[in-house]
Amino acid sequence: MNQRIVLNSRPLGLPVAENFRFEAIEIPTVKEGEVLLKTVYVSVDPYLRGRMNDSKSYVPPFQLDQPIVSGVIAEVVKSRHPNFKVGEHVLAALAWQELQTSTGDGLNRVDDSMAPLSVFLGALGMTGMTAYFGLTTIGVPKPGETLVVSGAAGAVGTMVGQIGKILGCRVVGIAGTDQKVAMLKSKFGYDEAVNYKTTLDMKAAIAKACPNGVDIYFDNVGGGISDAVLANINKYARIPVCGAISLYNATETQIGPRVEPVLVKNSALIQGFIVTNYAAKFPEALSQLGKWFKEGKIHYTETIVEGFATIPQAFIDLFSGKNEGKMIVKI
Amino acid sequence: MNQRIVLNSRPLGLPVAENFRFEAIEIPTVKEGEVLLKTVYVSVDPYLRGRMNDSKSYVPPFQLDQPIVSGVIAEVVKSRHPNFKVGEHVLAALAWQELQTSTGDGLNRVDDSMAPLSVFLGALGMTGMTAYFGLTTIGVPKPGETLVVSGAAGAVGTMVGQIGKILGCRVVGIAGTDQKVAMLKSKFGYDEAVNYKTTLDMKAAIAKACPNGVDIYFDNVGGGISDAVLANINKYARIPVCGAISLYNATETQIGPRVEPVLVKNSALIQGFIVTNYAAKFPEALSQLGKWFKEGKIHYTETIVEGFATIPQAFIDLFSGKNEGKMIVKI
Repeated sequence: MNQRIVLNSRPLGLPVAENFRFEAIEIPTVKEGEVLLKTVYVSVDPYLRGRMNDSKSYVPPFQLDQPIVSGVIAEVVKSRHPNFKVGEHVLAALAWQELQTSTGDGLNRVDDSMAPLSVFLGALGMTGMTAYFGLTTIGVPKPGETLVVSGAAGAVGTMVGQIGKILGCRVVGIAGTDQKVAMLKSKFGYDEAVNYKTTLDMKAAIAKACPNGVDIYFDNVGGGISDAVLANINKYARIPVCGAISLYNATETQIGPRVEPVLVKNSALIQGFIVTNYAAKFPEALSQLGKWFKEGKIHYTETIVEGFATIPQAFIDLFSGKNEGKMIVKI
Repeated sequence: MNQRIVLNSRPLGLPVAENFRFEAIEIPTVKEGEVLLKTVYVSVDPYLRGRMNDSKSYVPPFQLDQPIVSGVIAEVVKSRHPNFKVGEHVLAALAWQELQTSTGDGLNRVDDSMAPLSVFLGALGMTGMTAYFGLTTIGVPKPGETLVVSGAAGAVGTMVGQIGKILGCRVVGIAGTDQKVAMLKSKFGYDEAVNYKTTLDMKAAIAKACPNGVDIYFDNVGGGISDAVLANINKYARIPVCGAISLYNATETQIGPRVEPVLVKNSALIQGFIVTNYAAKFPEALSQLGKWFKEGKIHYTETIVEGFATIPQAFIDLFSGKNEGKMIVKI
């Protein structure tokens, strides 16, 4: 018995359960040079929403009636491949499927003595790398600068704040519940945090939380929150744009204040990126993040839900902020 | 007899003649260590509009009842300063005033054997430097890339296109009359040019003019023209934002499509700048631009109007695109 989850229909706006379909399929035969992988942890991420549209983006769209693919930790349960042994764990972009074969292409062996397996989908995985490269290569933080992070309690946001602190910044987070705001300060070392859902005047709140203005704004959300931060930037501000979760589900083009005047006034920069741009430097980043992790400088929060059947709902819940930190499904 | 032009009232929207006031003043006495300067050429520039608002920007606002200041070429007509001789020409930020004194601070002697005097306000002046630094440090052109320039027939735009060609780009300009479009191709070497006033579907027109997409968009105007270009950018596109002339006169915050999604999709960057950020490198730029000028690789167009009394109208005319290339008033 084996099953997989395919794209049943393309979401219009927020994704719903009906966009996904479970299919019972055969357990695949393992040919010479292949391994059989058993899915152990599945990463659900906001960017997958973009791939569910039938439009050009940085990665090709998912196809209808074909499996969704995301970051997965899997165990090798059968091997006819010289480089992989039964019992080893690998990280790869794999189908939402209980059992699948692989030729070994794109499989990365995971060192489970370094950290718990699920952490390789979060703090030491793509989300950690996203935070690391966006902040260090676009944000280019200098000690004493003020860093504001939106979506601060999310998987990327918690990492951005911690790396910012390690690099000597004053760090201010924006999140959507009082519990998240408290956690940012108590667990992740944020100097200040603002609850955007209970704050009437975000522009004034950012100004108060950032008495020296904003030098770096790591933008995970876009929309009105970004408008409020932009109104507080300093000369030469840098704004890495990692995602625009507030825009992912939009069915029409979203409008807002034009950014050109504030960019010219402040000689500021906004730059979009995706983590795979930095693939050549992943080993360097993993080494740095792993070092900080071992030194106890990096904390993480996971929201782990259990069971293959829960994958679609875990993904849907991302857009109402039900997760704290990395959202992961344990099979 | 001497006269000056002061800010009579702050413009609301488009500037009008009543925002300026002519005042008759005394010819100043030249003290020891000073020179008396006679204004010869006055540069009028769109960015001055921003300084007429009473709001924080990259340079302090002009004060009511005080003279407007811009780039001026002046002749030394009296000297009690050891470094300046009568008959020499200098370039400086000076008041809109026929005769004024200076202690020599901020005066740059102009080598009138290199080029006609007025060119030091344009191709070899701030506008040339603006084009040079925005394109080379933010645009970072590579041979074979496609460069799109808005406000292409303006003072900065004509220089951006020519520098882009020298550096090996395919260059596409956007301008507002058929005459300007023709001139971009015949005089400034643009490969293609689009008249945005007679083109219904700018997005499609840019796509047609740029079969390989847009790698660099040098943005002199902002607004809807930029929206059309952004819809055609390539991965890793760079967008230096030099000015936002379509927004300078706006009395309310202008809204438009949010840029975050297109920046993330394309790992693209938008960066505002002002030329004074690069002050330390002005000599290097002047040397490079002067070399290209001598080699005949740089052409320029000036719109020169005559008479001190015409300065305000020359400035106002910038916003209806009456100028081709650099707008200069000859006194």
